[in-house]
Amino acid sequence: MAGEFFDDRETRAPEAREAARFDALPKQIAHAKETTRAFAKILGDADPEQVNSREALAELPVTRKSDLVDLQAENPPFGGLSSFDAGRVARIFASPGPIYEFQTERPDFWRLARALHAAGFRKGDVAHNSFAYHLTPGGWMMDSGARAIGIGVIPAGVGNSEQQVQAIQHLKPSGFIGTPDFLKVLLDKAEEIGADCSSIDKALVSGGALFPSLREEYTGRGVRTLQCYATADAGLIAYETADEDGNPNPGMIVDEELIVEIVRPGTGEPVPAGEVGEVVVTLFNPDYPLVRFATGDLSAVLEGESPCGRTNMRIKGWMGRADQTTKVKGMFVHPSQVASVVKRHDEVARARLVVEREAENDVMTLVCEVEGGAEGAGEALAEAVAESLQSACKMKGRVRFVTPGELPNDGKVIEDARSYE
Amino acid sequence: MAGEFFDDRETRAPEAREAARFDALPKQIAHAKETTRAFAKILGDADPEQVNSREALAELPVTRKSDLVDLQAENPPFGGLSSFDAGRVARIFASPGPIYEFQTERPDFWRLARALHAAGFRKGDVAHNSFAYHLTPGGWMMDSGARAIGIGVIPAGVGNSEQQVQAIQHLKPSGFIGTPDFLKVLLDKAEEIGADCSSIDKALVSGGALFPSLREEYTGRGVRTLQCYATADAGLIAYETADEDGNPNPGMIVDEELIVEIVRPGTGEPVPAGEVGEVVVTLFNPDYPLVRFATGDLSAVLEGESPCGRTNMRIKGWMGRADQTTKVKGMFVHPSQVASVVKRHDEVARARLVVEREAENDVMTLVCEVEGGAEGAGEALAEAVAESLQSACKMKGRVRFVTPGELPNDGKVIEDARSYE
Repeated sequence: MAGEFFDDRETRAPEAREAARFDALPKQIAHAKETTRAFAKILGDADPEQVNSREALAELPVTRKSDLVDLQAENPPFGGLSSFDAGRVARIFASPGPIYEFQTERPDFWRLARALHAAGFRKGDVAHNSFAYHLTPGGWMMDSGARAIGIGVIPAGVGNSEQQVQAIQHLKPSGFIGTPDFLKVLLDKAEEIGADCSSIDKALVSGGALFPSLREEYTGRGVRTLQCYATADAGLIAYETADEDGNPNPGMIVDEELIVEIVRPGTGEPVPAGEVGEVVVTLFNPDYPLVRFATGDLSAVLEGESPCGRTNMRIKGWMGRADQTTKVKGMFVHPSQVASVVKRHDEVARARLVVEREAENDVMTLVCEVEGGAEGAGEALAEAVAESLQSACKMKGRVRFVTPGELPNDGKVIEDARSYE
Repeated sequence: MAGEFFDDRETRAPEAREAARFDALPKQIAHAKETTRAFAKILGDADPEQVNSREALAELPVTRKSDLVDLQAENPPFGGLSSFDAGRVARIFASPGPIYEFQTERPDFWRLARALHAAGFRKGDVAHNSFAYHLTPGGWMMDSGARAIGIGVIPAGVGNSEQQVQAIQHLKPSGFIGTPDFLKVLLDKAEEIGADCSSIDKALVSGGALFPSLREEYTGRGVRTLQCYATADAGLIAYETADEDGNPNPGMIVDEELIVEIVRPGTGEPVPAGEVGEVVVTLFNPDYPLVRFATGDLSAVLEGESPCGRTNMRIKGWMGRADQTTKVKGMFVHPSQVASVVKRHDEVARARLVVEREAENDVMTLVCEVEGGAEGAGEALAEAVAESLQSACKMKGRVRFVTPGELPNDGKVIEDARSYE
């Protein structure tokens, strides 16, 4: 599938892309401030004209997905973050949380067409879509992407695997869309009842991890499977591409119509390339002008360019949830509290709060990366950090120093090491 | 809501409507013959130019919904009845049967917008749609009608009533769409958990009978509820309208974009106005040019014009299923077999096959309406009809004569009077 691009923006020179984006950003920031109550408040007196670089963008406040429940409850239905006329809402969704999401009349509202194209779907294909359409937007995200390309959709939803298999046998769709695991449910069911699902030779999966062994199994069963990473708020964030043999290229390519940053969880500070952090997106969607929206998902930048010829930034795909809020001695501890401790001490590069259980009691230890480790840190710093920790968390904790690089590169700021078994 | 029409076709002079339809019909019949394999065969050498009146239409063969399973199995996916390019299919459905249905890119493919308008839905409304979107087309039929008007839709689907109620409380939809009974499930659940669903003040229901007592209950709970009658193949067939106080006018108005006939079940012969029979539709949909498609549903023409000012033919709404196929002594008996007996004897106006159980045996009796009843019929006719019955059904049956009007006007050609308890 090399050489077949969705549009010529995918192969732009990276500098041209970056310049086009940051030329357009001030206008989008101004639009967010002018048309939404929430961003008027969140962005305060930031001057949109000045937000014309990654560095300037990184100075703006982050809005967290975990804040949506409260924002929407205070300011229904969408927390004041949307900027469309009421008459233009096409569909409204209620995801667990509850978090309310929407779709306007804008075609391919979530921009999934690009990911479907990369996975080999073309006009005239018929796709079996096993994402749910009821209350949640998963089915609709893929459906509207498919319709934008001209792909016929079997809106199968979840469950009824036998009926789904019978429909596949009769209708002979050319591709599958759904969660990584559900395709196996269908293929196994087909084997069990002797139904023929061999018309499906490609798949686009999302919404969870596709383990390499499962991908290999699908390939062995005749289904080339690629992944994408998308959320109900941001739409498509990144997508996999295939080489000429249909095998996946490393990493996921970021979509052309948003800006992705990877930040230290609980903060708005971008991490160095390659380090795991939280995915923060800024959209150019006029109806939902999210600025520095922290998705709560973990990923990392994968340096270099994809062999497929697409030139956009690559990320490693979905690496879990960044939301590490936990309870210690009955009190909530948020990653932002850990971050506030790190901020007060220039000597501390990174830190991780490890929560353990000792003699039926919760204990927490802030493990800090400092040049020279414990020796380099010294008593005075240990005391000062312990004091900051107590102040930030309203409870005492231990402090331990390690040398830079000793903490695992997994984006975790709080590690809950208690066993719940 | 009087005076507010969806378009000015609803108030045309009936003669103008009839003339417009039958002027357009020959072209549609020609289109069906030219673009579909099935109608090329079914319509044979019928000359489209001659099909320019109700009488001429009534001469064409009927295609039954109950034939679709076999037609589609022989000629997948759609039995050769569709006339669109493969690339233009938007969605494909698999209903129990299995019967496969489709939607093309044509906006408001099933024409439900007219019924939603009559039920009081307008641009800018938000509707809670509790029809399912998974595999079956119910949710999509209403959804595409709503989107054509500019109504925002909460695609709620079936089940999860508590989540649905919470979504209603937060999102405050102005109307409900779903089956007649499910609105009560939601309103009762809301009362149970103390949620506020009072934003809903109107409803369009379909897919089953709305009993008058339930409609009264809804009115009492602040929800004006109207019905419509639609099928996955034909789309909207007829819809209720309301008077100035929001109360339902008698009957249902036939949609502007199809021709409805009421025929004797098992045949293609129109029944006199007022008599219950099977609903047969002829569509002007270029993608699905169904000609004399028997829905398997029972209804009757309601003479006179609706007080709402709409001038189209009225029907009594859905009155049950016409498919009265049953097994007698282990063999199938179809309504068409009964009809073939009636056809052979000019003296018999109507007939009804009553199947009973006597001493652990099935017995069947053909009850025939004849001028003068048993006396008027005479021995010779009794013997002749009994012979025809045996020939048509491959088994013996009794014959009984009654006077015209004695048989109930319920569209039943076969009455299964056996108790299965």
